[in-house]
Amino acid sequence: MARRTGRRPGNPDTREAILAAARAAFAERGFDATSIRAIATAAGVDPALVHHYFGTKEELFRATVAIPLDPAELLPAVLAAGPDGAGERLVRTFLAVWDSPAGVAAVALLRSAVSNEWTGRLLREFLVTQVLRRVLDGLDVDPTELPLRGALVGTQMIGLAMMRYVLRLEPVASAAPETLVATIGPTVQRYLTAPLPTP
Amino acid sequence: MARRTGRRPGNPDTREAILAAARAAFAERGFDATSIRAIATAAGVDPALVHHYFGTKEELFRATVAIPLDPAELLPAVLAAGPDGAGERLVRTFLAVWDSPAGVAAVALLRSAVSNEWTGRLLREFLVTQVLRRVLDGLDVDPTELPLRGALVGTQMIGLAMMRYVLRLEPVASAAPETLVATIGPTVQRYLTAPLPTP
Repeated sequence: MARRTGRRPGNPDTREAILAAARAAFAERGFDATSIRAIATAAGVDPALVHHYFGTKEELFRATVAIPLDPAELLPAVLAAGPDGAGERLVRTFLAVWDSPAGVAAVALLRSAVSNEWTGRLLREFLVTQVLRRVLDGLDVDPTELPLRGALVGTQMIGLAMMRYVLRLEPVASAAPETLVATIGPTVQRYLTAPLPTP
Repeated sequence: MARRTGRRPGNPDTREAILAAARAAFAERGFDATSIRAIATAAGVDPALVHHYFGTKEELFRATVAIPLDPAELLPAVLAAGPDGAGERLVRTFLAVWDSPAGVAAVALLRSAVSNEWTGRLLREFLVTQVLRRVLDGLDVDPTELPLRGALVGTQMIGLAMMRYVLRLEPVASAAPETLVATIGPTVQRYLTAPLPTP
Protein backbone atom coordinates (compact mmCIF):
# COMPACT_ATOMS: atom_id res chain seq x y z
CA MET A 1 0.00 0.00 0.00
CA ALA A 2 3.07 2.26 0.11
CA ARG A 3 2.55 3.17 -3.55
CA ARG A 4 -0.93 4.46 -2.89
CA THR A 5 0.06 6.75 -0.01
CA GLY A 6 2.80 8.20 -2.19
CA ARG A 7 0.37 8.90 -5.01
CA ARG A 8 -1.14 12.36 -5.29
CA PRO A 9 -4.96 12.47 -5.19
CA GLY A 10 -5.06 14.40 -8.47
CA ASN A 11 -7.78 16.54 -10.02
CA PRO A 12 -11.15 15.47 -8.54
CA ASP A 13 -12.98 15.85 -11.86
CA THR A 14 -10.41 13.76 -13.73
CA ARG A 15 -10.42 11.11 -11.01
CA GLU A 16 -14.20 10.92 -11.08
CA ALA A 17 -14.26 10.71 -14.89
CA ILE A 18 -11.80 7.81 -14.77
CA LEU A 19 -13.78 6.06 -12.04
CA ALA A 20 -17.04 6.47 -13.99
CA ALA A 21 -15.45 5.09 -17.16
CA ALA A 22 -13.94 2.21 -15.18
CA ARG A 23 -17.24 1.32 -13.50
CA ALA A 24 -19.02 1.24 -16.86
CA ALA A 25 -16.29 -0.83 -18.53
CA PHE A 26 -15.91 -3.38 -15.70
CA ALA A 27 -19.68 -3.80 -15.41
CA GLU A 28 -20.26 -4.10 -19.16
CA ARG A 29 -17.32 -6.19 -20.31
CA GLY A 30 -16.01 -7.72 -17.09
CA PHE A 31 -12.66 -7.35 -15.37
CA ASP A 32 -10.61 -9.56 -17.69
CA ALA A 33 -11.74 -7.99 -20.97
CA THR A 34 -11.28 -4.42 -19.74
CA SER A 35 -7.95 -2.65 -20.30
CA ILE A 36 -6.57 0.46 -18.65
CA ARG A 37 -6.14 1.81 -22.18
CA ALA A 38 -9.85 1.44 -22.97
CA ILE A 39 -10.82 3.11 -19.70
CA ALA A 40 -8.41 5.98 -20.40
CA THR A 41 -9.87 6.43 -23.88
CA ALA A 42 -13.41 6.47 -22.51
CA ALA A 43 -12.42 9.03 -19.88
CA GLY A 44 -10.51 11.15 -22.40
CA VAL A 45 -7.17 10.91 -20.56
CA ASP A 46 -3.79 9.33 -21.10
CA PRO A 47 -3.38 5.74 -19.77
CA ALA A 48 -0.36 6.92 -17.78
CA LEU A 49 -2.65 9.24 -15.84
CA VAL A 50 -4.92 6.32 -14.92
CA HIS A 51 -1.92 4.42 -13.56
CA HIS A 52 -0.69 7.55 -11.82
CA TYR A 53 -4.00 8.09 -10.00
CA PHE A 54 -5.09 4.51 -9.34
CA GLY A 55 -2.11 2.17 -9.77
CA THR A 56 -2.78 -1.28 -11.22
CA LYS A 57 -5.99 -2.51 -12.88
CA GLU A 58 -6.76 -4.45 -9.67
CA GLU A 59 -6.37 -1.28 -7.60
CA LEU A 60 -8.56 0.71 -9.98
CA PHE A 61 -11.19 -2.04 -9.81
CA ARG A 62 -11.18 -1.98 -6.02
CA ALA A 63 -11.61 1.80 -6.16
CA THR A 64 -14.72 1.40 -8.38
CA VAL A 65 -16.35 -0.89 -5.82
CA ALA A 66 -15.13 1.28 -2.93
CA ILE A 67 -13.57 -1.67 -1.10
CA PRO A 68 -10.70 -0.48 1.06
CA LEU A 69 -9.13 -3.94 1.45
CA ASP A 70 -6.94 -5.85 -0.96
CA PRO A 71 -7.83 -9.54 -1.31
CA ALA A 72 -4.33 -10.08 -2.71
CA GLU A 73 -2.93 -9.12 0.69
CA LEU A 74 -5.47 -11.01 2.80
CA LEU A 75 -5.78 -14.30 0.94
CA PRO A 76 -2.21 -15.62 1.12
CA ALA A 77 -2.68 -16.15 4.85
CA VAL A 78 -5.77 -18.22 4.08
CA LEU A 79 -3.91 -20.38 1.60
CA ALA A 80 -0.43 -20.56 3.07
CA ALA A 81 -1.10 -23.59 5.25
CA GLY A 82 -2.37 -25.68 2.33
CA PRO A 83 -5.80 -27.04 1.48
CA ASP A 84 -6.53 -28.60 4.90
CA GLY A 85 -8.58 -26.14 6.92
CA ALA A 86 -8.68 -23.57 4.10
CA GLY A 87 -12.48 -23.39 4.45
CA GLU A 88 -12.25 -22.51 8.13
CA ARG A 89 -9.51 -19.94 7.49
CA LEU A 90 -11.50 -18.36 4.66
CA VAL A 91 -14.57 -17.96 6.89
CA ARG A 92 -12.42 -16.58 9.71
CA THR A 93 -10.77 -14.00 7.41
CA PHE A 94 -14.12 -13.11 5.84
CA LEU A 95 -15.67 -12.43 9.26
CA ALA A 96 -12.64 -10.44 10.43
CA VAL A 97 -13.02 -8.14 7.40
CA TRP A 98 -16.82 -7.76 7.56
CA ASP A 99 -16.83 -7.31 11.37
CA SER A 100 -14.20 -4.56 11.01
CA PRO A 101 -14.84 -0.89 10.11
CA ALA A 102 -14.12 -1.84 6.47
CA GLY A 103 -17.17 -4.11 6.62
CA VAL A 104 -19.45 -1.09 6.41
CA ALA A 105 -18.31 -0.53 2.81
CA ALA A 106 -18.81 -4.22 2.06
CA VAL A 107 -22.38 -4.19 3.38
CA ALA A 108 -23.11 -1.03 1.37
CA LEU A 109 -21.75 -2.72 -1.75
CA LEU A 110 -23.87 -5.82 -1.14
CA ARG A 111 -27.03 -3.76 -0.63
CA SER A 112 -26.32 -1.74 -3.75
CA ALA A 113 -25.54 -4.85 -5.81
CA VAL A 114 -29.01 -6.20 -5.13
CA SER A 115 -30.89 -3.09 -6.20
CA ASN A 116 -28.62 -1.93 -9.03
CA GLU A 117 -27.88 -4.12 -12.05
CA TRP A 118 -24.48 -2.54 -12.74
CA THR A 119 -23.28 -2.71 -9.17
CA GLY A 120 -24.43 -6.32 -9.18
CA ARG A 121 -22.18 -7.02 -12.15
CA LEU A 122 -19.27 -5.24 -10.47
CA LEU A 123 -19.71 -7.28 -7.29
CA ARG A 124 -19.91 -10.48 -9.31
CA GLU A 125 -16.70 -9.58 -11.16
CA PHE A 126 -15.02 -8.66 -7.90
CA LEU A 127 -15.97 -11.97 -6.30
CA VAL A 128 -14.88 -14.04 -9.26
CA THR A 129 -11.65 -12.33 -10.30
CA GLN A 130 -10.35 -10.91 -7.04
CA VAL A 131 -11.50 -13.39 -4.42
CA LEU A 132 -12.67 -16.79 -5.68
CA ARG A 133 -10.09 -17.14 -8.47
CA ARG A 134 -7.26 -16.32 -6.06
CA VAL A 135 -8.52 -18.78 -3.46
CA LEU A 136 -8.87 -21.60 -5.97
CA ASP A 137 -5.59 -20.85 -7.74
CA GLY A 138 -3.92 -21.32 -4.38
CA LEU A 139 -5.37 -24.82 -4.03
CA ASP A 140 -4.58 -27.75 -6.28
CA VAL A 141 -7.95 -28.46 -7.89
CA ASP A 142 -9.04 -29.49 -11.39
CA PRO A 143 -9.21 -26.26 -13.46
CA THR A 144 -12.46 -27.37 -15.13
CA GLU A 145 -14.06 -27.49 -11.67
CA LEU A 146 -12.94 -24.00 -10.63
CA PRO A 147 -16.06 -22.09 -11.76
CA LEU A 148 -18.53 -24.38 -9.95
CA ARG A 149 -16.40 -24.59 -6.80
CA GLY A 150 -15.97 -20.82 -6.75
CA ALA A 151 -19.69 -20.17 -7.23
CA LEU A 152 -20.62 -22.69 -4.52
CA VAL A 153 -18.25 -20.97 -2.08
CA GLY A 154 -19.90 -17.73 -3.16
CA THR A 155 -23.39 -18.99 -2.30
CA GLN A 156 -22.31 -19.77 1.26
CA MET A 157 -20.29 -16.60 1.85
CA ILE A 158 -22.84 -14.20 0.36
CA GLY A 159 -25.59 -15.95 2.32
CA LEU A 160 -23.56 -15.61 5.51
CA ALA A 161 -23.09 -11.89 4.80
CA MET A 162 -26.81 -11.46 4.05
CA MET A 163 -27.90 -13.16 7.27
CA ARG A 164 -25.30 -11.65 9.59
CA TYR A 165 -25.04 -8.08 8.27
CA VAL A 166 -28.11 -7.27 6.13
CA LEU A 167 -31.10 -9.25 7.46
CA ARG A 168 -29.38 -9.63 10.87
CA LEU A 169 -31.02 -12.95 11.66
CA GLU A 170 -30.20 -14.27 15.11
CA PRO A 171 -28.30 -16.18 16.36
CA VAL A 172 -26.06 -15.77 13.28
CA ALA A 173 -26.05 -11.96 13.57
CA SER A 174 -24.47 -12.00 17.05
CA ALA A 175 -22.67 -15.34 16.96
CA ALA A 176 -19.03 -15.49 17.99
CA PRO A 177 -16.88 -15.72 14.86
CA GLU A 178 -15.49 -19.10 15.95
CA THR A 179 -19.01 -20.57 16.14
CA LEU A 180 -19.48 -19.68 12.48
CA VAL A 181 -15.98 -20.86 11.58
CA ALA A 182 -16.75 -24.23 13.18
CA THR A 183 -20.14 -24.65 11.49
CA ILE A 184 -19.72 -22.95 8.11
CA GLY A 185 -15.99 -23.58 7.61
CA PRO A 186 -16.50 -27.29 6.79
CA THR A 187 -19.07 -26.33 4.15
CA VAL A 188 -16.61 -24.04 2.41
CA GLN A 189 -13.91 -26.69 2.74
CA ARG A 190 -16.18 -29.23 1.02
CA TYR A 191 -16.93 -26.81 -1.83
CA LEU A 192 -13.21 -26.12 -2.26
CA THR A 193 -11.78 -29.63 -2.19
CA ALA A 194 -14.33 -32.46 -1.87
CA PRO A 195 -15.20 -34.48 -4.99
CA LEU A 196 -17.98 -32.92 -7.05
CA PRO A 197 -20.84 -35.05 -8.36
CA THR A 198 -20.28 -36.26 -11.92
CA PRO A 199 -22.56 -34.29 -14.26
CA MET B 1 -56.35 -23.12 -0.96
CA ALA B 2 -60.04 -23.89 -1.50
CA ARG B 3 -60.94 -21.46 1.29
CA ARG B 4 -59.19 -18.59 -0.43
CA THR B 5 -60.93 -19.05 -3.79
CA GLY B 6 -64.27 -19.04 -1.97
CA ARG B 7 -63.48 -15.78 -0.20
CA ARG B 8 -64.73 -12.56 -1.70
CA PRO B 9 -62.01 -9.99 -2.55
CA GLY B 10 -63.75 -7.32 -0.50
CA ASN B 11 -63.46 -3.54 -0.55
CA PRO B 12 -60.02 -2.63 -2.00
CA ASP B 13 -59.51 0.26 0.43
CA THR B 14 -60.34 -1.89 3.43
CA ARG B 15 -58.12 -4.71 2.19
CA GLU B 16 -55.23 -2.32 1.66
CA ALA B 17 -55.70 -0.75 5.09
CA ILE B 18 -55.59 -4.19 6.69
CA LEU B 19 -52.50 -5.16 4.69
CA ALA B 20 -50.71 -1.93 5.63
CA ALA B 21 -51.51 -2.43 9.31
CA ALA B 22 -50.40 -6.06 9.09
CA ARG B 23 -47.09 -5.18 7.40
CA ALA B 24 -46.32 -2.60 10.05
CA ALA B 25 -47.25 -4.92 12.92
CA PHE B 26 -45.37 -7.98 11.61
CA ALA B 27 -42.27 -5.91 10.85
CA GLU B 28 -42.31 -4.08 14.19
CA ARG B 29 -43.30 -6.79 16.63
CA GLY B 30 -42.70 -10.00 14.69
CA PHE B 31 -45.09 -12.71 13.63
CA ASP B 32 -45.57 -14.41 17.00
CA ALA B 33 -46.32 -11.26 19.01
CA THR B 34 -48.78 -9.88 16.47
CA SER B 35 -52.48 -10.73 16.80
CA ILE B 36 -55.26 -10.45 14.25
CA ARG B 37 -57.06 -8.33 16.86
CA ALA B 38 -54.22 -5.79 17.04
CA ILE B 39 -54.06 -5.57 13.25
CA ALA B 40 -57.82 -5.06 13.08
CA THR B 41 -57.64 -2.31 15.69
CA ALA B 42 -54.83 -0.54 13.80
CA ALA B 43 -56.78 -0.80 10.54
CA GLY B 44 -60.00 0.37 12.21
CA VAL B 45 -61.98 -2.74 11.32
CA ASP B 46 -63.54 -5.70 13.11
CA PRO B 47 -61.26 -8.76 13.57
CA ALA B 48 -63.91 -10.89 11.85
CA LEU B 49 -63.42 -8.83 8.71
CA VAL B 50 -59.67 -9.54 8.74
CA HIS B 51 -60.40 -13.26 8.92
CA HIS B 52 -63.05 -12.90 6.25
CA TYR B 53 -60.67 -11.22 3.80
CA PHE B 54 -57.40 -13.01 4.58
CA GLY B 55 -58.14 -16.21 6.53
CA THR B 56 -55.62 -17.24 9.16
CA LYS B 57 -52.76 -15.19 10.56
CA GLU B 58 -50.37 -17.27 8.41
CA GLU B 59 -52.38 -16.48 5.30
CA LEU B 60 -52.47 -12.78 6.14
CA PHE B 61 -48.71 -12.82 6.70
CA ARG B 62 -48.11 -14.44 3.32
CA ALA B 63 -50.31 -11.77 1.73
CA THR B 64 -48.16 -8.99 3.29
CA VAL B 65 -45.01 -10.44 1.73
CA ALA B 66 -46.85 -11.16 -1.55
CA ILE B 67 -45.72 -14.78 -1.62
CA PRO B 68 -48.25 -16.89 -3.53
CA LEU B 69 -47.06 -20.22 -2.09
CA ASP B 70 -47.81 -21.78 1.24
CA PRO B 71 -44.81 -23.34 2.99
CA ALA B 72 -47.26 -25.35 5.09
CA GLU B 73 -48.33 -27.14 1.93
CA LEU B 74 -44.87 -27.57 0.40
CA LEU B 75 -42.81 -28.60 3.40
CA PRO B 76 -44.56 -31.83 4.46
CA ALA B 77 -43.22 -33.49 1.28
CA VAL B 78 -39.72 -32.41 2.31
CA LEU B 79 -40.11 -33.87 5.78
CA ALA B 80 -42.32 -36.91 5.18
CA ALA B 81 -39.45 -39.30 4.43
CA GLY B 82 -37.66 -38.49 7.68
CA PRO B 83 -34.38 -36.72 8.41
CA ASP B 84 -32.25 -38.69 5.93
CA GLY B 85 -31.99 -36.72 2.72
CA ALA B 86 -34.09 -33.83 4.09
CA GLY B 87 -31.35 -31.39 3.03
CA GLU B 88 -31.45 -32.58 -0.58
CA ARG B 89 -35.24 -32.50 -0.63
CA LEU B 90 -35.32 -29.00 0.85
CA VAL B 91 -32.92 -27.70 -1.84
CA ARG B 92 -34.94 -29.48 -4.56
CA THR B 93 -38.23 -27.95 -3.34
CA PHE B 94 -36.62 -24.52 -2.94
CA LEU B 95 -35.32 -24.56 -6.53
CA ALA B 96 -38.65 -25.83 -7.89
CA VAL B 97 -40.40 -22.85 -6.27
CA TRP B 98 -37.83 -20.21 -7.25
CA ASP B 99 -37.46 -21.56 -10.80
CA SER B 100 -41.27 -21.43 -11.22
CA PRO B 101 -43.35 -18.35 -12.12
CA ALA B 102 -43.87 -17.83 -8.37
CA GLY B 103 -40.13 -17.30 -8.06
CA VAL B 104 -40.47 -13.83 -9.57
CA ALA B 105 -42.28 -12.68 -6.43
CA ALA B 106 -39.63 -14.32 -4.25
CA VAL B 107 -36.80 -12.53 -6.07
CA ALA B 108 -38.66 -9.24 -5.78
CA LEU B 109 -39.10 -9.82 -2.05
CA LEU B 110 -35.42 -10.61 -1.62
CA ARG B 111 -34.35 -7.49 -3.53
CA SER B 112 -36.73 -5.36 -1.52
CA ALA B 113 -35.63 -6.91 1.78
CA VAL B 114 -32.07 -5.77 1.16
CA SER B 115 -32.90 -2.16 0.42
CA ASN B 116 -35.82 -1.69 2.82
CA GLU B 117 -35.44 -2.22 6.56
CA TRP B 118 -39.09 -3.14 7.11
CA THR B 119 -39.27 -5.59 4.24
CA GLY B 120 -36.07 -7.09 5.57
CA ARG B 121 -37.77 -7.67 8.91
CA LEU B 122 -40.80 -9.21 7.18
CA LEU B 123 -38.59 -11.58 5.17
CA ARG B 124 -36.69 -12.55 8.31
CA GLU B 125 -39.96 -13.26 10.14
CA PHE B 126 -41.25 -15.23 7.16
CA LEU B 127 -38.10 -17.35 7.00
CA VAL B 128 -38.06 -18.06 10.71
CA THR B 129 -41.73 -18.66 11.47
CA GLN B 130 -43.06 -20.05 8.20
CA VAL B 131 -40.14 -21.98 6.75
CA LEU B 132 -37.28 -22.78 9.12
CA ARG B 133 -39.42 -23.46 12.18
CA ARG B 134 -41.62 -25.86 10.20
CA VAL B 135 -38.64 -27.70 8.75
CA LEU B 136 -36.97 -28.11 12.10
CA ASP B 137 -40.20 -29.02 13.93
CA GLY B 138 -40.52 -31.89 11.47
CA LEU B 139 -37.11 -33.26 12.41
CA ASP B 140 -36.16 -34.62 15.78
CA VAL B 141 -33.50 -32.16 16.92
CA ASP B 142 -32.63 -30.59 20.27
CA PRO B 143 -34.97 -27.58 20.68
CA THR B 144 -32.16 -25.42 22.07
CA GLU B 145 -30.30 -25.92 18.80
CA LEU B 146 -33.21 -24.93 16.56
CA PRO B 147 -32.36 -21.23 16.19
CA LEU B 148 -28.75 -21.81 15.14
CA ARG B 149 -29.63 -24.70 12.82
CA GLY B 150 -32.38 -22.67 11.21
CA ALA B 151 -30.18 -19.62 10.71
CA LEU B 152 -27.37 -21.74 9.24
CA VAL B 153 -29.80 -23.28 6.75
CA GLY B 154 -30.92 -19.74 6.01
CA THR B 155 -27.37 -18.60 5.19
CA GLN B 156 -27.02 -21.32 2.57
CA MET B 157 -30.49 -20.94 1.02
CA ILE B 158 -30.43 -17.13 0.85
CA GLY B 159 -26.94 -17.26 -0.60
CA LEU B 160 -28.10 -19.77 -3.23
CA ALA B 161 -30.99 -17.45 -4.12
CA MET B 162 -28.68 -14.43 -4.28
CA MET B 163 -26.19 -16.17 -6.58
CA ARG B 164 -28.69 -17.93 -8.85
CA TYR B 165 -31.43 -15.31 -9.16
CA VAL B 166 -30.09 -11.88 -8.15
CA LEU B 167 -26.37 -11.72 -9.00
CA ARG B 168 -26.77 -14.56 -11.56
CA LEU B 169 -23.26 -15.87 -11.10
CA GLU B 170 -22.40 -18.74 -13.45
CA PRO B 171 -22.33 -21.68 -13.39
CA VAL B 172 -24.80 -21.59 -10.46
CA ALA B 173 -27.23 -19.34 -12.36
CA SER B 174 -27.76 -21.91 -15.14
CA ALA B 175 -26.92 -25.12 -13.29
CA ALA B 176 -29.33 -28.03 -13.51
CA PRO B 177 -31.31 -28.24 -10.26
CA GLU B 178 -29.94 -31.71 -9.53
CA THR B 179 -26.35 -30.41 -9.67
CA LEU B 180 -27.23 -27.97 -6.90
CA VAL B 181 -29.19 -30.61 -4.99
CA ALA B 182 -26.13 -32.87 -5.09
CA THR B 183 -23.66 -30.19 -4.01
CA ILE B 184 -25.67 -27.95 -1.67
CA GLY B 185 -28.09 -30.57 -0.30
CA PRO B 186 -25.44 -32.19 1.92
CA THR B 187 -24.62 -28.77 3.40
CA VAL B 188 -28.25 -28.20 4.39
CA GLN B 189 -28.43 -31.77 5.71
CA ARG B 190 -25.41 -31.11 7.92
CA TYR B 191 -26.93 -27.88 9.28
CA LEU B 192 -30.19 -29.71 10.01
CA THR B 193 -28.94 -32.85 11.72
CA ALA B 194 -25.15 -33.07 12.21
CA PRO B 195 -23.74 -32.40 15.68
CA LEU B 196 -23.08 -28.73 16.37
CA PRO B 197 -19.79 -27.61 17.95
CA THR B 198 -20.03 -27.19 21.71
CA PRO B 199 -20.04 -23.47 22.56
